Order: sequence, then structure tokens, then C-alpha cells
Amino acid sequence: MTVQRADARRNYARILAVAEEEVAAHGADASLEQIARVAGVGSATVRRHFPGRRALLEAVFSERIEVLCARAEELAGAADARAALLDWLGALTTYAASARGMGEALVQDGMTDPEHVNVCSAKLGGAVDPLLHHAASAGAVAPGVTTADLIALVTGIALATENHPDPTAEALRLLGLTMQGVSPQK
Amino acid sequence: MTVQRADARRNYARILAVAEEEVAAHGADASLEQIARVAGVGSATVRRHFPGRRALLEAVFSERIEVLCARAEELAGAADARAALLDWLGALTTYAASARGMGEALVQDGMTDPEHVNVCSAKLGGAVDPLLHHAASAGAVAPGVTTADLIALVTGIALATENHPDPTAEALRLLGLTMQGVSPQK
Repeated sequence: MTVQRADARRNYARILAVAEEEVAAHGADASLEQIARVAGVGSATVRRHFPGRRALLEAVFSERIEVLCARAEELAGAADARAALLDWLGALTTYAASARGMGEALVQDGMTDPEHVNVCSAKLGGAVDPLLHHAASAGAVAPGVTTADLIALVTGIALATENHPDPTAEALRLLGLTMQGVSPQK
Repeated sequence: MTVQRADARRNYARILAVAEEEVAAHGADASLEQIARVAGVGSATVRRHFPGRRALLEAVFSERIEVLCARAEELAGAADARAALLDWLGALTTYAASARGMGEALVQDGMTDPEHVNVCSAKLGGAVDPLLHHAASAGAVAPGVTTADLIALVTGIALATENHPDPTAEALRLLGLTMQGVSPQK
């Protein structure tokens, strides 16, 4: 690998890391210029790696999905299956709450094709499946709960809390209520 | 009251009833022309009562809120406080799922002022407060659950299920899971 290539890879990684933080803080409205500034590179460098907002948001989106999938793999062998499932759903909720507006922006502006979203959903589903089955085998999950149910509930909580002053904390609290039961039959 | 006024009142009630059905079926995109057709009146009559889509949607919205508040009053004295709370939350969920896109359309298009939405939220909150307190006194609700939590959870479920083939049934199923607990600690 040439020095130039290694530099380019480091730049890419740095821009992506900054972009993740900016998107977490400002959603899909994150400024490309601000990302370049914080990453300490020129706007032209950002544009060379990410020709536009769509490419940048998709890269951030994909990176976060990968991190969530890796976390699920780490948790798959945990002794406490319920705790492992709740841990992962907490990570998904934190991501969904911090990515506010992003998924919507990608879909609404035609910034991504539904197929891309489906691929991401399928990846997340594949990641959480073993955690759900493990917890269900341990009798720790209500009968009939599917992976799609879990993702729908987390998505809903993230959407319902996006205007809250502290959306992540609020989303995690509502996730806790949903898992434990708001009004469980005794 | 003159015959003309009584006629106008009946027309208004009929148009509003049809509008509710059309909005439930088609969301905020419900056609004013279709509403006139089904109600058996001319478009001019619809426009005389509801000068535009905004006025019509706001009237439908307000009417549904009134119905939900009346239902809460009916349920307030029920012997089974938990069943009463779940019954009302089911009605709210059914409404939220069938009103898909409406609230969003009202807010996004500047079709209503946030104050109107706040008034509606406050009304719903005031209606469910006694049901929540009654159920909480009976020990049937997790500690710390607020009226705002209940409305946020139902809103999220409605948003997360709006693209489902049968959004109302799916939303009610997820509400049941949320109330009972997806993964209750034993």
C-alpha cells in the first residue's frame, strides 16, 4: 500500500467517525462543511470520499449497522439470555434515537432505495435472531414475540421521543417499560 | 330554528361522519370530492361547512378527541381498573392507527398551529389521568408511569405500524405486548 493510500484510508476513517458524531448530534441535517472542519480536512477531501450527503449518510448508516451486528455476536453466548437481549435492544434504541430523522430523510428524499433499507433491516434481524431465540428458550420472552416486533417497538419509541429534550434517555426509559410491561397482568 | 338551519346541521353531521371514515381509510389524503359524493351533497356544500382541507381535518381530529374523552369518562368508574385502562388505550391506539398521517400532515403543512395540537394532547391527558391513577392505585401499573408515557408509547406504536397491511390489528397486538411486557423479569 502506498503512503497516499494509507493517508486516504485514515482520512476516510476520520471523516466517517466525525460524520457519525455530527449525525448523532444533528440528524440528517449534519453539515458537510462542519464535518470537514472537525475532521481537519478540506471540503474537497470530504467530497472525494463522499460525493454527496446521500453517500455520507449511507456510509454512517451502514457503519452503525455493522457495529450493532458485531455487538449481537459478542452477546450471543452470554449466560443471562434476557440481559443480553435487553443490552442489545438498548444499543439499538440508543442508535435509533441518535439517528433521528436520518432514516426518514434517506427514504423521503429518495436518498436511498427501499432495497438498501431492507438489506439493513435484514442484517439487524439476522443479528438479533439468535439473542431472541436464546432468551425465548430461557422463558424470558412473551410467547409469539418476533424479531420484527422488537424492531418495530424500538423504531416507534425512537420516533415518539425525537422531540424530547433528551431523546436517548427518554427512549431507553420507555424501552425499559415496554420490556418489563407497563401494566402486567399479575 | 328554521328548516334551513336544521338541514345545514344535518349536512354538517353527515359530512363530518363521512369525512371520519374517509380519513380513517385514506389518512390526510382523503379526497374532499369523494367525501361530498359519499355524503350525497355537492362540493359547494362541503366547502361551505369546511372552507378547506385544514378545517375538515381539524374538525375530524377534534371530533375523535371528544369521543375518546367521553369513552374515558364512561370507563372511569369501572370495577376492573386495569381492564378499563387497557380498554381506553386500545381505543386510543385504534384511533392513532386509523388517523395515520393526519397529525403529521396537520403539523408539517402548517395546517394547524402547535397550540391546537397541545390543546388536544392536554385534553387526552386529562381524560386518561383518572384511569391511570385508578389503575396505579390498584397496583396494576409499573411505578412511575405517566400519562405522557402512555401517549408516547401509543403514538410510537402507531407510527411504527403505519406501513403494515393491517395497521390497526398490528398496533393493538404491539400495545398488548407493551402492556403485558415483552420480556418481564420473573
